[in-house]
Amino acid sequence: MAKGDLLIIGGNEDKTDEKVILSKFATICQNRQGPIGIVTTATAYPEEVGNEYASLFHTLHGTKPLLLHLDSREKADDPELIEQLSSLSGLFMTGGDQLRLTSLLGGTTFYKHCLKEWKGGLVIGGTSAGAAVMSRLMIISSKISKKQDVSILEMGSGFGFLEDVIIDQHFSQRDRFSRLMRAIALNPQIIGVGIDENTAIWVNSERNQFEVIGEFNVSIFDGKTSSYIDVAENKENMTISDIRFHTLGEGAIFDLTKRELIIS
Amino acid sequence: MAKGDLLIIGGNEDKTDEKVILSKFATICQNRQGPIGIVTTATAYPEEVGNEYASLFHTLHGTKPLLLHLDSREKADDPELIEQLSSLSGLFMTGGDQLRLTSLLGGTTFYKHCLKEWKGGLVIGGTSAGAAVMSRLMIISSKISKKQDVSILEMGSGFGFLEDVIIDQHFSQRDRFSRLMRAIALNPQIIGVGIDENTAIWVNSERNQFEVIGEFNVSIFDGKTSSYIDVAENKENMTISDIRFHTLGEGAIFDLTKRELIIS
Repeated sequence: MAKGDLLIIGGNEDKTDEKVILSKFATICQNRQGPIGIVTTATAYPEEVGNEYASLFHTLHGTKPLLLHLDSREKADDPELIEQLSSLSGLFMTGGDQLRLTSLLGGTTFYKHCLKEWKGGLVIGGTSAGAAVMSRLMIISSKISKKQDVSILEMGSGFGFLEDVIIDQHFSQRDRFSRLMRAIALNPQIIGVGIDENTAIWVNSERNQFEVIGEFNVSIFDGKTSSYIDVAENKENMTISDIRFHTLGEGAIFDLTKRELIIS
Repeated sequence: MAKGDLLIIGGNEDKTDEKVILSKFATICQNRQGPIGIVTTATAYPEEVGNEYASLFHTLHGTKPLLLHLDSREKADDPELIEQLSSLSGLFMTGGDQLRLTSLLGGTTFYKHCLKEWKGGLVIGGTSAGAAVMSRLMIISSKISKKQDVSILEMGSGFGFLEDVIIDQHFSQRDRFSRLMRAIALNPQIIGVGIDENTAIWVNSERNQFEVIGEFNVSIFDGKTSSYIDVAENKENMTISDIRFHTLGEGAIFDLTKRELIIS
């Protein structure tokens, strides 16, 4: 049994035009039987957001999706609901607040079954908050200083589909360069992956490689080679030397184990 | 004879509180006799801006500065005005539009004398537009796309006090990460130096090293080690692999020849 692919979207993916990213998700899900499940836990508008994705995936995938409105830990432990997980080909997590996802679903029966099904081939997709939770360590929030975007970072545990990675979303659009740099300064063994809006990484979980799809760029910060780090809490300026940096556009393939671009 | 130091400021330096950066400029200028000259060519408000810096440097340096309102190529070729250059200890270029500086002063007698005096020890400072012109190659402007800050870049010739460097100013505050990355992708042999507001690099021109002073960070992008670059005009996404990246805070010393942080 091979682990399912991941599709990690930087938010604000096109839903009206060519729908390149959502079509890709629907296509990857075709490798397995069953409908797509939509987890609306992150959003404050589960009905609207859920119905929008349900309608899109119904068209793109050809099967009526299953809406999973898991808004409490009780629901996420409900055996009947959990049962349905094994019938799915893919699971998609909407945007919203990543802390809702991890606090309501983390450690629940639903989460454990997700992990088990993913290890057996369930495809998992997520956008924005649904992207942030993909890694073991995740960014919860950051405080922006008055004059600059250097941030006091709040980090926590994500769902752990990716190890040694921190995902940041809306990357160029929300000017998150400094906040991801700070996350890497504090965790130099980890690769920072900044995903722009309407852009995604399509992860082959078995190979631990991803391909970039969509409109803009994915920025990679690798602190493992760093020769010098001087960073302190609540201090706006920091010195970090010798970070390896990559900017990746559509079609680029990156190996997360070797930490390098695959040139084909 | 040793080349004069350069003080290259990312714009918006403190003028009312501790004035760390402007004080530093005044102090460096003490190494040579004579007043500080203020070049107001970049700004659309030469009187106001010139008088503000004149008043500040008068206090900080102890000598009445010389205002150089060079608003035409004719004036920049005026022998009397040029004569005064050799009496100065330092020359400071205000912010405004860098293209005014290079188009009005580039190649003039004033510019040639500047270069000669600098080689003999004249200290040169500049903020914002006055910082951008310090390098041989400079960023003139960039177009911002609707959704992202990836830019169509216009570049031109600066004053060439620094070789193999591109300066970008207001770096974090104006979210110029993508534009400097693009400049490096197009000129990978060059080091990109992004200077935040109220932050400066103090360049020892003889050693080709600088020290960071001021409130925020200086970001360095070194494309020389890059293993793969795929970038095209008018294309928003690009792939660049293996850029060496450094974030430097106050006190950090960087060697522009060796392209590395000096750890003392």
